[in-house]
Amino acid sequence: MLLLKRCYSTSNRIYRSKLFIPIQKDQKLQSDQIKSQLLMQKGGMIRKASVGIYMNLPFGYRVLENISRVIDQEMQAIGGQKLSMPVLLSKQLWDKTGRWESSGDDLIKLKDRKEDEYCLAPTHEEIFTDLIAQETMANSIFPLKLYQIGEKFRDEIRPRFGLLRGKEFLMKDMYSFDLTVEDASKTYYQVKDAYHRIFNRLELNYACVEADSGNIGGSLSHEFQVLSQVGEDTLMNCNACGYHSNIEKAKSTSPRVSTQVKEIYSTFFKITTNENHQFLLIALVNKKDEVNQFSFKQALPGISIKSCDQLTNINSLPIISGGDIKVLKDDSIKISNEDILDILNTKYSTMMNSIKSTVPVLEGLIRCSQVGDFCQQETCKGHQHPITSGKGIEVGHIFYLGTKYSQPLNANIKNEKGDLVPLEMGCYGIGVSRLLATVIETLSDDQGYKWPREIAPYQLIILPKYYNQESLPNLQLAEQISDELVKAHPNLVNQIVIDDRQINLGQKMKEASFLGFPMTLIIGDEKPNKARFELEFRSDSKKKLELNQNDLINYFKNQIK
Amino acid sequence: MLLLKRCYSTSNRIYRSKLFIPIQKDQKLQSDQIKSQLLMQKGGMIRKASVGIYMNLPFGYRVLENISRVIDQEMQAIGGQKLSMPVLLSKQLWDKTGRWESSGDDLIKLKDRKEDEYCLAPTHEEIFTDLIAQETMANSIFPLKLYQIGEKFRDEIRPRFGLLRGKEFLMKDMYSFDLTVEDASKTYYQVKDAYHRIFNRLELNYACVEADSGNIGGSLSHEFQVLSQVGEDTLMNCNACGYHSNIEKAKSTSPRVSTQVKEIYSTFFKITTNENHQFLLIALVNKKDEVNQFSFKQALPGISIKSCDQLTNINSLPIISGGDIKVLKDDSIKISNEDILDILNTKYSTMMNSIKSTVPVLEGLIRCSQVGDFCQQETCKGHQHPITSGKGIEVGHIFYLGTKYSQPLNANIKNEKGDLVPLEMGCYGIGVSRLLATVIETLSDDQGYKWPREIAPYQLIILPKYYNQESLPNLQLAEQISDELVKAHPNLVNQIVIDDRQINLGQKMKEASFLGFPMTLIIGDEKPNKARFELEFRSDSKKKLELNQNDLINYFKNQIK
Repeated sequence: MLLLKRCYSTSNRIYRSKLFIPIQKDQKLQSDQIKSQLLMQKGGMIRKASVGIYMNLPFGYRVLENISRVIDQEMQAIGGQKLSMPVLLSKQLWDKTGRWESSGDDLIKLKDRKEDEYCLAPTHEEIFTDLIAQETMANSIFPLKLYQIGEKFRDEIRPRFGLLRGKEFLMKDMYSFDLTVEDASKTYYQVKDAYHRIFNRLELNYACVEADSGNIGGSLSHEFQVLSQVGEDTLMNCNACGYHSNIEKAKSTSPRVSTQVKEIYSTFFKITTNENHQFLLIALVNKKDEVNQFSFKQALPGISIKSCDQLTNINSLPIISGGDIKVLKDDSIKISNEDILDILNTKYSTMMNSIKSTVPVLEGLIRCSQVGDFCQQETCKGHQHPITSGKGIEVGHIFYLGTKYSQPLNANIKNEKGDLVPLEMGCYGIGVSRLLATVIETLSDDQGYKWPREIAPYQLIILPKYYNQESLPNLQLAEQISDELVKAHPNLVNQIVIDDRQINLGQKMKEASFLGFPMTLIIGDEKPNKARFELEFRSDSKKKLELNQNDLINYFKNQIK
Repeated sequence: MLLLKRCYSTSNRIYRSKLFIPIQKDQKLQSDQIKSQLLMQKGGMIRKASVGIYMNLPFGYRVLENISRVIDQEMQAIGGQKLSMPVLLSKQLWDKTGRWESSGDDLIKLKDRKEDEYCLAPTHEEIFTDLIAQETMANSIFPLKLYQIGEKFRDEIRPRFGLLRGKEFLMKDMYSFDLTVEDASKTYYQVKDAYHRIFNRLELNYACVEADSGNIGGSLSHEFQVLSQVGEDTLMNCNACGYHSNIEKAKSTSPRVSTQVKEIYSTFFKITTNENHQFLLIALVNKKDEVNQFSFKQALPGISIKSCDQLTNINSLPIISGGDIKVLKDDSIKISNEDILDILNTKYSTMMNSIKSTVPVLEGLIRCSQVGDFCQQETCKGHQHPITSGKGIEVGHIFYLGTKYSQPLNANIKNEKGDLVPLEMGCYGIGVSRLLATVIETLSDDQGYKWPREIAPYQLIILPKYYNQESLPNLQLAEQISDELVKAHPNLVNQIVIDDRQINLGQKMKEASFLGFPMTLIIGDEKPNKARFELEFRSDSKKKLELNQNDLINYFKNQIK
């Protein structure tokens, strides 16, 4: 009985002369280009179809498949179940969460022949939530984690940097459903751990940083940022302890201590809470600092902020019911609360009746982190390690959504008491095509691509010295070795390329380095007392093994896991 | 050194209680539905997102992945290289072949924020050809076969039958490029063979029939039709010899022989050749027959037909330069050419000056095949085996394109003489999501799904008798067996489901049959002198094995390939 025929025939040799890798040697970096974009163009991995839209040619497509495989493995290891959702999503569904309107011009909209309206999916929260809302399921199925890997669309106002910011791109998106907040939190951190495993397997130099949850909603969010100067996000770093943070969430110790009133700068905000209570917030920082709105949440415990609007024209303050005012001073301000209320009264008494002495003066870290501040992580305390800034490419973003989608879309479940309550959700994205570009941007070197082993398009290239009929035995030996290696090591099926072209060996070696094959096997002419095979490693240019045929096969059998 | 971590941990057990397979038992067949559509809805494989647009849920998605794997293996075995093309295709490119206009309302069009126009790809001839046109390649790379598996879009006027005719669907499309017509023909038949292997591995009852190449162009085309009464294509069949043909291409022997002039019926056509020469064709068949325009090509050798317009109003015949007329009589007409010219002269002399005796009277099989005709295949000759008609679902379609796309898009190559000539192309489609529905439509039975082994979502389900704490040892044994089987048979990784639900064993068995697991292992209570395991097979309800634990493991080790 036949079970599964998953393996290719071992006689399926892969020849370089047949591979569609259209190399364009003479491309030069354009002023609006980045390194990865040029390299992908030169190496025949991508071609531009139109602005922000690319073809993924076979060499690059193999890497995309390998990245997807790593993601599949890690998502399924934590119980993720894979499916696929449509690209065309109906307006009707998006209207239910209000995102049809709020998504703005980034959303690509279209009509069919019956004038029904659709968008091209930029993300799939609505349809996943709606799916769960429609089904009746036993509670035992939760935590439920559903995910897909598919094309997403965004009408970027300025598509750029090749696959880093395109109009059509490949994404992994997972959505989780839990019965309780506690369960949802467990799921969130379980996915976060899986993300670490993914980015580690891709050998990326990345940081996981707390992030603001923005328009997707929810209250907890982390970004996975690959450190790179072409990144579009700003990170604050400490080189001593390895601390990285999104600038919005960064915390550091300021060397700027304000002891005099003239050093203080005040900013006004209208805060609306989730309970629709409003108050005026006067935020005070050193004149050399900037207020960081994203820190208010932590600095105002017990207050759930729905919106926070900075008031630029303080001559026309909005009427706050009850004249509710709070003062929030940065913790670098060393001035008594009384003095602060005094000076505010003097300065702003014309704008409001008076700032009473009963107005609370709260304290917190509410300034933006600056380069040159000191790291305040536990291990750096007292050391004055300076904060530096750098750029990051966001390759992953995870959100705890709470009931933002389950509530309006009625994805409910009966809890232990028998009450219908909305499910607790999370969503978790990885930019798959962006990851491909990021790997190339950050890991390649002067010679060309340098692939993490797990996602290399091929593992080995065999380069026989082969110019003419006389050197044909070298090519035949390459074919024999390819077959033997596949036999010795089943994981090498479909992973070995034979460079069968009648060109200079130096040219072949240069191209092999450029294309980044992790291992290169050179087959020279037979000479007495000389090893015929030389094995080179792209990850370590100094490591070269000279071997005879037996040792070579044994090396792969025993040393290559 | 790490090579590839492709395998999942063997301890990753799959529990039925955690699988998102939302079964809807009570669904009934609607009047506008077909069996597969209902079964996929009931079995939690698909859900409708909007008209003609579906979500592929995890159970169905696994089958789609398996079908894609079979296709990948067969395409790569003949040298196919996989890539991915964008969904958004620019109007500019489609204008070059004129298909932006000629595709009509089926093409979904949209504009981006900059008012640039795109369509959602229904097929990718233009972009593949343009890609090849832009690159300089050594001739040694040909034959070149590039393919992808991805979403396609068609604004169906009446989407129906679930995944059989949707607006968004999954397709495999391959495009081949060859240096000469001979090479292209070899490639065409090589792909045709691969298609046979694919549909055989999917255990489908299908026919490969000659087809008209329609609007895609080219001169040679075959369809792969799965025989099914819900199919939308009409096939003519001979049950004796297994002959199948698309009705347009069907040939059979007619029992209607015309010996008298009054039995003849004449139809008029204006034919334009590729060289823009025009003539009037008078086609004659028996009054009980219909003229088959698609047969003209074969019946008029040496004439390359560009267009063929039937003239319904023969009172206003178009002016044909030189009054060029040809007469073509069906081979069932047994009347002399002189008599035919005579009667035509009598009947139509008012419409044209006269039909001269020099007008050629050609003969050919130009009637449509009819039910009750006799099969004229070699093995059936002289037997009067009747032709029947049936319906087919088109799951594959291959086209020899010639230079239809390479010429306008300048995909040229230098031939041996050094002249630039357009490449010879072919294109080859398989409806992947349609195949999923077709497998279910034609292979499932009263009990439910019946999967071809190679694409079953899972291979085995283990059903322990498990109702309460007392029967927990049965569940624990199921877990142990699952681990041991995976260890004994690496292909079973990720292929075994344990039904851990505390429900009636009969219910579990019924669901296992419905979901179509190829093998079901029932674990009963321990009883003296009784085998504890029963292995059942979905493909053969009579085959049941009663085994003890050792025999069971050995059975899988030795009998399951």
